[in-house]
Amino acid sequence: MSMNSFGHLFRVTTWGESHGPALGATVDGCPPGVPVAEEDLQVWLDKRKPGQNKFTTQRREPDQVKILSGVFEGKSTGTPIQLMIENTDQRSKDYGDIVEKFRPGHADITYWQKYGIRDYRGGGRSSARETAARVAAGGVARNALQALVPGIQIKGYMTQIGPHKINRDNFDWDQIDQNPFWTPDAAAAADWAEYLDQLRKDGNSVGAVVEVVARGVPAGLGAPVYGKLDTDLAAAMMSINAVKGVEIGEGMDAAALTGVENSDEIFMGNDGKPVFSSNHAGGILGGISTGQDVVVRFAVKPTSSILTTRKTITKSGEPTEIITKGRHDPCVGIRAVPVGEAMMACVILDHLLLNRGQVGEELPGKIG
Amino acid sequence: MSMNSFGHLFRVTTWGESHGPALGATVDGCPPGVPVAEEDLQVWLDKRKPGQNKFTTQRREPDQVKILSGVFEGKSTGTPIQLMIENTDQRSKDYGDIVEKFRPGHADITYWQKYGIRDYRGGGRSSARETAARVAAGGVARNALQALVPGIQIKGYMTQIGPHKINRDNFDWDQIDQNPFWTPDAAAAADWAEYLDQLRKDGNSVGAVVEVVARGVPAGLGAPVYGKLDTDLAAAMMSINAVKGVEIGEGMDAAALTGVENSDEIFMGNDGKPVFSSNHAGGILGGISTGQDVVVRFAVKPTSSILTTRKTITKSGEPTEIITKGRHDPCVGIRAVPVGEAMMACVILDHLLLNRGQVGEELPGKIG
Amino acid sequence: MSMNSFGHLFRVTTWGESHGPALGATVDGCPPGVPVAEEDLQVWLDKRKPGQNKFTTQRREPDQVKILSGVFEGKSTGTPIQLMIENTDQRSKDYGDIVEKFRPGHADITYWQKYGIRDYRGGGRSSARETAARVAAGGVARNALQALVPGIQIKGYMTQIGPHKINRDNFDWDQIDQNPFWTPDAAAAADWAEYLDQLRKDGNSVGAVVEVVARGVPAGLGAPVYGKLDTDLAAAMMSINAVKGVEIGEGMDAAALTGVENSDEIFMGNDGKPVFSSNHAGGILGGISTGQDVVVRFAVKPTSSILTTRKTITKSGEPTEIITKGRHDPCVGIRAVPVGEAMMACVILDHLLLNRGQVGEELPGKIG
Amino acid sequence: MSMNSFGHLFRVTTWGESHGPALGATVDGCPPGVPVAEEDLQVWLDKRKPGQNKFTTQRREPDQVKILSGVFEGKSTGTPIQLMIENTDQRSKDYGDIVEKFRPGHADITYWQKYGIRDYRGGGRSSARETAARVAAGGVARNALQALVPGIQIKGYMTQIGPHKINRDNFDWDQIDQNPFWTPDAAAAADWAEYLDQLRKDGNSVGAVVEVVARGVPAGLGAPVYGKLDTDLAAAMMSINAVKGVEIGEGMDAAALTGVENSDEIFMGNDGKPVFSSNHAGGILGGISTGQDVVVRFAVKPTSSILTTRKTITKSGEPTEIITKGRHDPCVGIRAVPVGEAMMACVILDHLLLNRGQVGEELPGKIG
Repeated sequence: MSMNSFGHLFRVTTWGESHGPALGATVDGCPPGVPVAEEDLQVWLDKRKPGQNKFTTQRREPDQVKILSGVFEGKSTGTPIQLMIENTDQRSKDYGDIVEKFRPGHADITYWQKYGIRDYRGGGRSSARETAARVAAGGVARNALQALVPGIQIKGYMTQIGPHKINRDNFDWDQIDQNPFWTPDAAAAADWAEYLDQLRKDGNSVGAVVEVVARGVPAGLGAPVYGKLDTDLAAAMMSINAVKGVEIGEGMDAAALTGVENSDEIFMGNDGKPVFSSNHAGGILGGISTGQDVVVRFAVKPTSSILTTRKTITKSGEPTEIITKGRHDPCVGIRAVPVGEAMMACVILDHLLLNRGQVGEELPGKIG
Repeated sequence: MSMNSFGHLFRVTTWGESHGPALGATVDGCPPGVPVAEEDLQVWLDKRKPGQNKFTTQRREPDQVKILSGVFEGKSTGTPIQLMIENTDQRSKDYGDIVEKFRPGHADITYWQKYGIRDYRGGGRSSARETAARVAAGGVARNALQALVPGIQIKGYMTQIGPHKINRDNFDWDQIDQNPFWTPDAAAAADWAEYLDQLRKDGNSVGAVVEVVARGVPAGLGAPVYGKLDTDLAAAMMSINAVKGVEIGEGMDAAALTGVENSDEIFMGNDGKPVFSSNHAGGILGGISTGQDVVVRFAVKPTSSILTTRKTITKSGEPTEIITKGRHDPCVGIRAVPVGEAMMACVILDHLLLNRGQVGEELPGKIG
Repeated sequence: MSMNSFGHLFRVTTWGESHGPALGATVDGCPPGVPVAEEDLQVWLDKRKPGQNKFTTQRREPDQVKILSGVFEGKSTGTPIQLMIENTDQRSKDYGDIVEKFRPGHADITYWQKYGIRDYRGGGRSSARETAARVAAGGVARNALQALVPGIQIKGYMTQIGPHKINRDNFDWDQIDQNPFWTPDAAAAADWAEYLDQLRKDGNSVGAVVEVVARGVPAGLGAPVYGKLDTDLAAAMMSINAVKGVEIGEGMDAAALTGVENSDEIFMGNDGKPVFSSNHAGGILGGISTGQDVVVRFAVKPTSSILTTRKTITKSGEPTEIITKGRHDPCVGIRAVPVGEAMMACVILDHLLLNRGQVGEELPGKIG
Repeated sequence: MSMNSFGHLFRVTTWGESHGPALGATVDGCPPGVPVAEEDLQVWLDKRKPGQNKFTTQRREPDQVKILSGVFEGKSTGTPIQLMIENTDQRSKDYGDIVEKFRPGHADITYWQKYGIRDYRGGGRSSARETAARVAAGGVARNALQALVPGIQIKGYMTQIGPHKINRDNFDWDQIDQNPFWTPDAAAAADWAEYLDQLRKDGNSVGAVVEVVARGVPAGLGAPVYGKLDTDLAAAMMSINAVKGVEIGEGMDAAALTGVENSDEIFMGNDGKPVFSSNHAGGILGGISTGQDVVVRFAVKPTSSILTTRKTITKSGEPTEIITKGRHDPCVGIRAVPVGEAMMACVILDHLLLNRGQVGEELPGKIG
């Protein structure tokens, strides 16, 4: 227990259940003097908000964030920032069936065994609603990042849905915000719409891959050998509901490469900083950022709540069946995009703070 | 900085460079009364030791572990256990070329930028020799695990080298210890030997995938939502040198599945414990163990030290070329197997301790 | 930064400023199944509440606590418990003078220097109002303690105000709740009332000593050598606003004793547990509880906000004078009593959880 | 368990028992580029070393420190620094009596109950020999402090032995290194020698008070509200063996003062920094350093090992008596002086690192 926090110096603790009075994040370690307004955070919550198109759940959750502390006259004071999101659309009756039955693929059975008590309403603590709190905290991190490293960019997008991957040749950064899948491949977006529509009608669901890139990250971030930048990113992404795999740069495909193929050769750039022939490393060497794009990818499993009958047992151990009705996302990967961005923002900020006095200014190790 | 530790209650701090006087692990949090002898730990160090066949580096490192504290009359006392491995085969002259040049794919350039000073001899702190300390600590964890959950098993093996994957139909648990690749597919082992031999002669290297399974893990381990069992496993594996991807259960392939396909249905077993129709989840739901096998997989990139000329720069920023001579593993994935096992042992033990009073005995939530 | 949390497994993070919308505590690590109701916590908040007699500030703060998460159907679920107290009586105009001037003895000047921004209203984050959140969290800890170790008692009381100490011969446990000073010496209470009344009329203030006892604490709590029970108690008490000294058992007076005088001899009790001839040690040996009363004492400095003119400077560095008007406690030690109790409850619970599987049941080391 | 570490970013883990092969400290988080040599650390170990005069134990322990990692060509590299001190004078036969009997005032009984196993030789882990590792780590901290804040001074001295306090009017900084008690009052030193000599001959022991001052500490150090500078100092000092009380500035005596008396008025100094009329606060306001001397005081109880018969019990619960023979310090306070200095150095450095980018350079909040 006592495990609802992440981060070293920028430390986020989320709290709250899907059907309690509220949920939120206690953000401790934001540097002082950072402009923080509820409107800034709301942008990202709105990006994650359900019910925006037919590919996400039709639940209506305004997800309005309130700042209860840590901000004075529009700026952070260096004290904890409490972010609260009240739960408003709590149709508890939708969830009556899961009081006694364990939904396959959900945390119902493990929470029950571990704790001997669980808030079964809508998944309670294990609901993906918890990620709203992460997104709010990520908004604070984004503002702090902009203050420390102006121009830094963090962007997530889908690169695969079910068996369908994007065509990297079609990659267009400007397309990302133009389609409901946050994908940089416009052609893929059109195909995916059709594919997902059919799955939804079949009462089925599907997995996805989300890629998140941080551009403009200074070299030198990361604390070997267990607070490595990639270690912390792997933990951050794996902690998101439904994530089953995390990759840095080349990821699992690195296994298939030879040393010659995988080599990112080093050159001197015109601006006096090193440049690389490629980025198989995903911007991280030995756990420390190289100054290249930091590239993380994670796989989200298909939504476990499906309209197809599945076999399970009751709390009494009796065999039974379950259909998870209610309003569920056919592909939770879509709404995982802003969550992945939020986690990236928090981790990068955390390591920037760990490096204070060293990065953004002069690095101790000069080249040239 | 101050980031060389992992674990919550079973906390391991590794220290030491490849060419200093010694390296080791400070193991804090081993329960009292656990039998711990140097010979027990040496078994695992020997498994990782180089020079055992032609597929691993020909460096001779006896890697003899000494216990300096925390064990009295053959048993742990609950105080820190200091494990020291002296560095004996330090041919510093082999590494003369890397004083001024940054080896592509290595941490040379990032350590230099971050710290402004680095022990360039053999990679110093970023050398994979650091993993010897992990393996020693993992040995302590294994003994504690056996004391707490008799019969628990932790086993790693290679499932892929370069583009060549094992055939899961050939999976034979008993084959694992019978070949230099620790692979359960005897046919694959023969093919791989030929493949790797050629690569080695070409002065090239290749990546690999390692799978680690923990069998007999009680249900209820894992501390949502940021101390999840899968979160901690992802961090543990990603922190190993050269790892670029981590998967739980279905892993990245979960993206390609539908909800119907991915569903692990639940039944009641004859022993009064739940059983599942499949294990796409890798033994973890909502961050908590289900009682099934815990299955983790990680990709190791190809060794960056290759006998092929690569372009790079010097500390002064001048363009140059480098060939990394010396005695290097053509596939570091092989020796990563005992390292992955050690990390698994440490993480599982850590979560067992977090659950003390709950697991191994009665779980608070009964079924049936 | 990121330093607003305490505890290892029972981890409390407080947040909020005196004049923001709300303040509270994020309580992570409460075991599941503990009965927790707002009314239970309110008892302790009411004990700390100002305005109850003429010896405490006449501000009216209802300090009504709300539980926002972590409790389901009256019981803790093992997930974070969010406790919120809304700020209602925010007469900001009382504090106009301190926008530009630093109050001597307050954190005004250090917060300004450290953060470059501060919520000056009523002390902001450095206000003693923050301790309301601790008291609420302590209420949760008390309930969990009762569930784990039925009959355990935690009691605080004043033993000194200004130069006036209690007479230990008059010590009467039952008197503690009978007077506004929470003191066990009825005669002292009468004298103190007169003394403090005069000080208050003079626009002055005074310090105090508070003693907190935990009775019924099992032997074996405490984690040497830096998570010792006394170490954690010292930190917990010193973190309370205005505290300048912390003592365990004999405390500073131990310096004046000889080894013969200070010795707590050991005997075997009738119940098969060790008993001691005395308790100079304050119930802790080598950082671990002995089973005796755990005794902690701390000194609270006189309230720095006084109606006497003091010299200071402005933010611009100009010399000036200040009188801190407003409604202040002439002796903050009185209201520090429930705060000290809350910290004791949190620390003892935290160490009980660290010892799960060992204490409350059989200790590993039997005597007899 | 897993509680043998202290510090946030400068993190020290001590390990080892008094009669094992070695003990030491794993120092993680030392900034890179700090000159560190074994001779530098040895200075402080020699100050703590026993057998230097008749007022300390006559055991001969060379306490020679070896650096095993983290230092390259005379400078720290930012990786963990392993400090090892081999145990050489292990006359185990001296301790035969304590295998079965619990020494009053020692951790024998609590370690036994908690762990069910203990290294009884010389106190094992609970021996004050553990403080040698602290002193070594403190040496590293001192070097890093000098690199970051040149001219900073840390000095400890005894202000009381038994009932005999120094006369503050005799305070002479230059006297401290001139007498075996490290006391600034030369007259007191002479009296104390006589007093302690008699106690030693009587087979008795006595307590002491040690004061440690840090001079030249920048304003702005400390992380409210639970990582306060005074909170961390209280924990650091209370964690030292035999310490029973900790005070900041006025300490316990603050209870006896009025607000008018206790007020440290603020003025503007000639160098553009604030100055104060007095230092009742001990250099800390609201948990943050003011730029004044940081003043900590702690009481050490009389050595529990005395040549006077005391009543106790055996492991079997039988009543018995014990005389602790062997070579013990009549006043452990003397050798606690360098230990207190080491803890001060570690805590100050830790908070300097937490403030990187803010302190030593420009503070965010300007005055004037």
